Amino acid sequence: MIDRQAVAEASARLRPHVRRTPTIRLARGELEGMGKLDRTGELLLKLELLQHSGSFKPRGAFNRALTGDIPRAGLIAASGGNHGAAVAFVARRLGVAAEIFVPAITGQAKRERITSYGARLVEAGATYAEALAACRARQADTGALDIHAYDHPAVLAGQGTIGYELSEQATGLTHLLVAVGGGGLIGGIAAWYGGSIRLVGVEPRACPCLHEAMRLGRPVDAPVGGIAADSLGAQRIGGLAFALARAFVQEAVLVEDEAIAAAQRWLWERLRLIVEPGGATALAALLSGAFSPPPDAGVGVVVCGANADPTSIVG
Amino acid sequence: MIDRQAVAEASARLRPHVRRTPTIRLARGELEGMGKLDRTGELLLKLELLQHSGSFKPRGAFNRALTGDIPRAGLIAASGGNHGAAVAFVARRLGVAAEIFVPAITGQAKRERITSYGARLVEAGATYAEALAACRARQADTGALDIHAYDHPAVLAGQGTIGYELSEQATGLTHLLVAVGGGGLIGGIAAWYGGSIRLVGVEPRACPCLHEAMRLGRPVDAPVGGIAADSLGAQRIGGLAFALARAFVQEAVLVEDEAIAAAQRWLWERLRLIVEPGGATALAALLSGAFSPPPDAGVGVVVCGANADPTSIVG
Repeated sequence: MIDRQAVAEASARLRPHVRRTPTIRLARGELEGMGKLDRTGELLLKLELLQHSGSFKPRGAFNRALTGDIPRAGLIAASGGNHGAAVAFVARRLGVAAEIFVPAITGQAKRERITSYGARLVEAGATYAEALAACRARQADTGALDIHAYDHPAVLAGQGTIGYELSEQATGLTHLLVAVGGGGLIGGIAAWYGGSIRLVGVEPRACPCLHEAMRLGRPVDAPVGGIAADSLGAQRIGGLAFALARAFVQEAVLVEDEAIAAAQRWLWERLRLIVEPGGATALAALLSGAFSPPPDAGVGVVVCGANADPTSIVG
Repeated sequence: MIDRQAVAEASARLRPHVRRTPTIRLARGELEGMGKLDRTGELLLKLELLQHSGSFKPRGAFNRALTGDIPRAGLIAASGGNHGAAVAFVARRLGVAAEIFVPAITGQAKRERITSYGARLVEAGATYAEALAACRARQADTGALDIHAYDHPAVLAGQGTIGYELSEQATGLTHLLVAVGGGGLIGGIAAWYGGSIRLVGVEPRACPCLHEAMRLGRPVDAPVGGIAADSLGAQRIGGLAFALARAFVQEAVLVEDEAIAAAQRWLWERLRLIVEPGGATALAALLSGAFSPPPDAGVGVVVCGANADPTSIVG
């Protein structure tokens, strides 16, 4: 299991390569009409959607690539889109080749991101799990460095650097809400914070793999569907992430697709931010009341991905 | 002329009312292909587009409203759009009425913002100057508190609080680029910084009122047109702003509409930010080479407005 030290080392390693994304504080009066949320203290948003390639994923991908041996064949990865864009971005920065395997559900915005960084894009299968199988078969042929989207210690430690930054940016945080796909983000953040704040995982009801694993006490296959499937659509929580989540995640809450879409509109109306469904999922738990922080909590939300078509939100 | 003290007082007054907007630092390697920009040091963006109502304007409007007597008729203002949205937002927060006069060029996104805050919207005339005349006639009838878009000491001091925040957020800044319409923003920032950093005003070539005033040594009427006219389309630089600009603004540079549109696309591609033409104008001076900072300059850019239709930028 990775620990706080691994995240601190990743933070030092990544400093020249990733953006330190800003936070913005919303005051009590800004949350009117949002039920219990307005009666809590302030809300802090970590604007990780401003990261390179439009999501948090370059943190883990850089940390894996910078701690591995990159062969002549370069990097290879399977992805719903954001991880693939990140690996393509990392490959371009490091001057190596990349092949990215995506399932059929991956949207056009993410495909264009991947090819815009010069990577080779391969569509394989209907789901992330099928794209991953095709990616592994290809990796066995080429020998490229496989950068898993979540279930690798270096990837977890890289994603955890968001927690490291937040510790510097936000004192007084008592609760942090994080969207969960395969668990790389929440696992890395859990490794950093340990039990020092309350971590809440948020999943779409249509992609509940952490919720199911916590209910049953072990990683199990779960359905994959709904509007956030191309970023949060892992079939099974990663083993490394689950161990960290079991130790340090207080709760795994579920939100409806309608609540996610409402959070996307809220972020556009109030902040003029274009946020993809997976990036708005954690906020949706607060806005819909699926998670109610106690009075005077210091609540943070990671807004973790931007790669949506604006016309899906506006107008 | 307002001074540093007036801006400091405004900062204390506004703290409960406006967002402290974040900054993001872009590293040298992120600016590849951008000519001389890539050879300078880092670039800091002040993300003031995340302010309430989607632009910096609530700072000045709050400072004016909070230091004036608000009669039963409430607030009244003429605006290309962003100032009107800000005054409408301020009126709603303070629980008073508002009437906003806009010219025909004001776009739909801005009109919707204004009415969404409950203000009465009146279209009057083809340009901002004509809307202002209609607004003044109406104010003489109603007695409402007139909040000028730029040419008032309290408005300037309010906009200057961006400089106050930047001083805390960014040490090492040597140059700051600021878009100029009527001059409220750059005037207020000039009052804060005085001569301690180099301030560069940036205008569309189609709306060059500061450039013309600096060339001729006094405020003069200038053309109003181009893609940023609804936010930067003042016919004549404000008298108060011009006095501050003459003292403390190093240079007023002009950019083409095409450079502004390219900067909007750059902000979307690199940061997934939807930025209106006036909000991207300052950055356009760097990206187009209209302004070249010296080597190792610490360059800041105020990204001051978001209120665009995303489909005008994407796709």
